[in-house]
Amino acid sequence: MTQITQKNIKLASHAGFCYGVKRAVETTKRLKCESPEKNIYVLGELIHNSQVIKELEDLGILTVESLPENTQQSSSICIIRSHGASGATFEEIKNKGYELTDLTCPDVKKAQNKAIELVRSGCFLIILGEPQHPEVAAIEANARQAAFSSDEVFVANNIEALQRIEDIIKKQEKIGVVVQTTQRLEYLKEVLNWLLPISRELRIVNTICASTSLRMNEAKVLAEESDLMIVVGSKKSANTTH
Amino acid sequence: MTQITQKNIKLASHAGFCYGVKRAVETTKRLKCESPEKNIYVLGELIHNSQVIKELEDLGILTVESLPENTQQSSSICIIRSHGASGATFEEIKNKGYELTDLTCPDVKKAQNKAIELVRSGCFLIILGEPQHPEVAAIEANARQAAFSSDEVFVANNIEALQRIEDIIKKQEKIGVVVQTTQRLEYLKEVLNWLLPISRELRIVNTICASTSLRMNEAKVLAEESDLMIVVGSKKSANTTH
Repeated sequence: MTQITQKNIKLASHAGFCYGVKRAVETTKRLKCESPEKNIYVLGELIHNSQVIKELEDLGILTVESLPENTQQSSSICIIRSHGASGATFEEIKNKGYELTDLTCPDVKKAQNKAIELVRSGCFLIILGEPQHPEVAAIEANARQAAFSSDEVFVANNIEALQRIEDIIKKQEKIGVVVQTTQRLEYLKEVLNWLLPISRELRIVNTICASTSLRMNEAKVLAEESDLMIVVGSKKSANTTH
Repeated sequence: MTQITQKNIKLASHAGFCYGVKRAVETTKRLKCESPEKNIYVLGELIHNSQVIKELEDLGILTVESLPENTQQSSSICIIRSHGASGATFEEIKNKGYELTDLTCPDVKKAQNKAIELVRSGCFLIILGEPQHPEVAAIEANARQAAFSSDEVFVANNIEALQRIEDIIKKQEKIGVVVQTTQRLEYLKEVLNWLLPISRELRIVNTICASTSLRMNEAKVLAEESDLMIVVGSKKSANTTH
């Protein structure tokens, strides 16, 4: 005979979409609703969530990996997702004759703008994040476009990557640091403690988004209190995996 | 019968004056040697070392706490020591008709200039050091003169002092940090780890001087290796007490 025990299930109070993603999904749906005659393309998955992508497809909103030539009679819209995009991508969209709707998350936009500001003020820029992640790729592309030389921008997803360029770092007069919005604060702290004794001037913009911080802290507390924790999210999402 | 054991005495390889102090002492002596007819005043102890002060007195170089009216027929020189001085002090020296010789240590001058640069770029400035120490007082005075408001400059000699103004710090868009040249790197690290989660943008200029870092690291190693360690220096000196 199996014994029946009571189970408590706790839901994180900040579970669900963050405001940047919510804004992107709602705006995309509204655009289709307001202009059903227009073709709407999203460049890359709007969010890393296959159910949402399916829902958008059902509404006739297409997710594409690269933007097709615009051969349609009616006007077409191309959406930049919350992760942002490079200047070259913005150019391509306009050159192909698409209307552009930029749904880059305001927090990601801030990270991009701060990265540009730092390289323009003469900093060697370190972006802390996953080099392959579209948000990081867009921050990097924007920073490289603003920099005098591509040697001034470096992406690191762990301290070892930075240790390999220690000699280059030591030569810099000013070092700027921005962070992928979904990184862990502990990683930023670890990097700073390492950078501090070997650098003259450090400019750190803590671009980790408030939503992410809240969720990570809550996840930690829940994990400590619980016997089993289930994180619901795509394996492609930085929010799920960190 | 007492047993005779062999004792090893190790001398720190970086013991002795740092270059800023050496430069101040040598220049002061040279000035008197070149112009024996001139009265030479040093505003505050040139360095925290009573033997050197005595030696200067014997040469006729006077240490004064405040600058007397210049009633001498022959010209008089006033020396700014390696700790630096406020803009008001520089003014006073000129107004009283003294020739001015500025022997502020170049590393201290850098800390002053960086403090000015940070407040001018809109930072709330935190100076990490002893509020009563003349070097810190001079950095603070220079920064306050450059700031729009005196509320933008804060001196902290421990993390508790910063915790008391946590609400003010949280409101700041940009925070600048400079450090008294003789502070410990561990203190700077501790402050940054505390500041990081509660601030948006941090500009840290590591103004701890290389000489100080070397000596502190060497002192640590020697202390670990030795049964007894003797630090020779004035109790007034930050170098001796840290």
